[in-house]
This record gives sequence, structure tokens and C-alpha cells, in this order.
Amino acid sequence: MDNERLLKQIKFIVEIDKMKQIFRQNVVIGTSRNENDAEHSWHLAVMAMLLSEYAVEKDIDIFKVVKIVLIHDLVEIYAGDTFCYDEKGNEDKLDREKCAAERLFNILPEDQGNEIKNLWVEYEDVKTPESCFAACLDRIQPLILNYNTCGHTWKKPGVTSEKVLKRNAILEENAPELWQYVKETIEDSVKKGYLIKN
Amino acid sequence: MDNERLLKQIKFIVEIDKMKQIFRQNVVIGTSRNENDAEHSWHLAVMAMLLSEYAVEKDIDIFKVVKIVLIHDLVEIYAGDTFCYDEKGNEDKLDREKCAAERLFNILPEDQGNEIKNLWVEYEDVKTPESCFAACLDRIQPLILNYNTCGHTWKKPGVTSEKVLKRNAILEENAPELWQYVKETIEDSVKKGYLIKN
Repeated sequence: MDNERLLKQIKFIVEIDKMKQIFRQNVVIGTSRNENDAEHSWHLAVMAMLLSEYAVEKDIDIFKVVKIVLIHDLVEIYAGDTFCYDEKGNEDKLDREKCAAERLFNILPEDQGNEIKNLWVEYEDVKTPESCFAACLDRIQPLILNYNTCGHTWKKPGVTSEKVLKRNAILEENAPELWQYVKETIEDSVKKGYLIKN
Repeated sequence: MDNERLLKQIKFIVEIDKMKQIFRQNVVIGTSRNENDAEHSWHLAVMAMLLSEYAVEKDIDIFKVVKIVLIHDLVEIYAGDTFCYDEKGNEDKLDREKCAAERLFNILPEDQGNEIKNLWVEYEDVKTPESCFAACLDRIQPLILNYNTCGHTWKKPGVTSEKVLKRNAILEENAPELWQYVKETIEDSVKKGYLIKN
């Protein structure tokens, strides 16, 4: 095989298989097994297909949202998953992830490496309608999983209803109907004892 | 929450979490753990983003390809994964999957249930450029994983190089450059002892 471009693409496809071994804090519904980044990204992509009608921005580019959620966690292959409520771990998160992005996206042919990197930077900046809606999905998916696993991750030390509400606050402006669902789910989770009120 | 439409969508999102527990025949690279359908679908979606230039049909709708690969295995939540080289299991596969589709897609609001069902039917029919390219990705992804796990699945009884080549034959017409990669990879796998020649 002397198709250098294709070989670079295949090398990247092999490398990102590691997403299936980057474990998140929450578990898969009905199990005690932690969800991994590949599963999480797939779930977000299907959710983007189904929930786009709730984005405040009506002419949102849904394919771009899907592309963003498919690649948004790739940098964790080298930088690892940082628990969103871990203040110390979040201090150097962006630096670690920038190095990871450089290393990972450079495996691809330059044009595609740049395309994926730009999507990731757009996601991290949370300024465009697409990246804002991708961030909304990234918040609400673990909330749905935690609600359906009796608050698995929410039982870790230091997690309170106020922190979960704050973590999801991006939905208030960007997807008000989903924000309403978030608020009611948090309230119900406190009632059911899945989450400490504070 | 009295938003009936949203509650149906959330119910579906919860139900398809089960994709993370439908295991395939191949393993994740570097592990002895079987890949699941959610991981497989995510991998195909990223591959669709990267490899679309190799589709013979130049005005292919890549977003549709991505949507198809994201949902193409959902029916396995109720119908289970059928090993592609299991002749007996494949006899009633379509009937089992049609029942599963009816049950699963009806959870969604009618318009979205129909949209997903139509994408799945299109995939199964393998007639449009998008479904043909989705099928190409669905064939080449396990080939890449098997090649990178010393032929894990190919060592099961009855699998031969001829059968793997036949399984991938759809690439010959629909993505000739990827077909070239497939042929060379199978040849190399036989040399390396990952796959029996026949």
C-alpha cells in the first residue's frame, strides 16, 4: 500500500480505538460498569439528531454539532478524563488537552488534522451556536444516566444539587425546554435521595 | 414535566443506552474485551467523516451516512448481534430485526420514529450511495480491528480468507481505494498467520 494519505487516516482510526478504554465517572444504566468515551460520544451524536429542535438558534448546523460531539473527547486518549467536579484536576486540564490535541491530530493528513482540531477548539471556546448546543448535550447526557442509575456519580464526595445545577446552567439560555427538564430531574433526584440538596 | 414529546425522546435515549451492552464478535485493540455496538457505531461515524473522499459517488450526503451508521445497529438491542459468518443465525436475522425496529422506533414521537426507521430500511436495502458507503465502513472497521488484534475473530471455526474477502466485496465497486487496502490487509494477515488461506 503506497497510498500515504490513506495510511495516515487508518493509523488515526486505529489510534482512536483507545477511546473505548477511557472511562468516565458515570456508569452504564443497569450495570456497575463505567461508561467510556466512545460510548458517551455515540450517545451524544444520536441525541444531537433527536433534540436539535430544542436549540434556541433555529438555523443551527446539526451536522456540525454531530461532528463536534463525535470528536470532542478525543484528546482524553492522552490527557485522560477529568471529573467535572474535581477542582484541582481542572486547573491544568486545558494545557494537558492542548498537548494531546497536537499529538493526536497530527497523525492525520494536514487538512483533516486541522479540520478536527478546529472543531475541537470551537467546542472548547463555547461561543458558536453549534458548540453551545454540543455543550448542552454533553451536560444533559450524564444527568440522564445518573438519574437512571439512582444518582451513581452524584454520590461521590462533594457533589450537591447546586453544583449539578450550575454544571448544567448552559442549557438555560441555549435550550430552555431541556433546562426545564434538567431542573425538574434534579429536584426529583433530591426527593428520591439520589442527590444531596445544597 | 408535561412535555410529552420530550419525554418520549428521553425514554428512547434511555432505552438505547442498552447498545453499550450488545457485544460484537471482535475485541477492542490491546484488550480481550469484546467491542459493543455503541463503540462500533461511534467508530464508524468518525470514519465516515474521514474516509468519504473514497466513496465512488462524489456527491454523497455524508451527514446521511453518519446518521445511518449511528443508528444502523439499534435493532440489535432486541434482536441481538448475529455473527456475519453464522449461516443459521442469518436465516431469520431480518425477521427478528424488523420486529425489533417496530418496537424500538415506536418509542419516539411518530415523525422521528419514521425518520430513524427509514434510515435503517435504507441501510438494509443497500441501494443508495449513502447506504452502500455505510455498508463499506461497516465491513472495513472490523477488518481493521481484526488485523490489529492478530486476527481475533478470524480464528473462529470456519472463517477463511475467501469468506472475509467476500464479506468485504461491496468495497470493490463502492470504494476501490479502500478495497485495495482490504485486499492487501487480508493477504498480509494470511502471511502473518492471522487468517487461514482458502
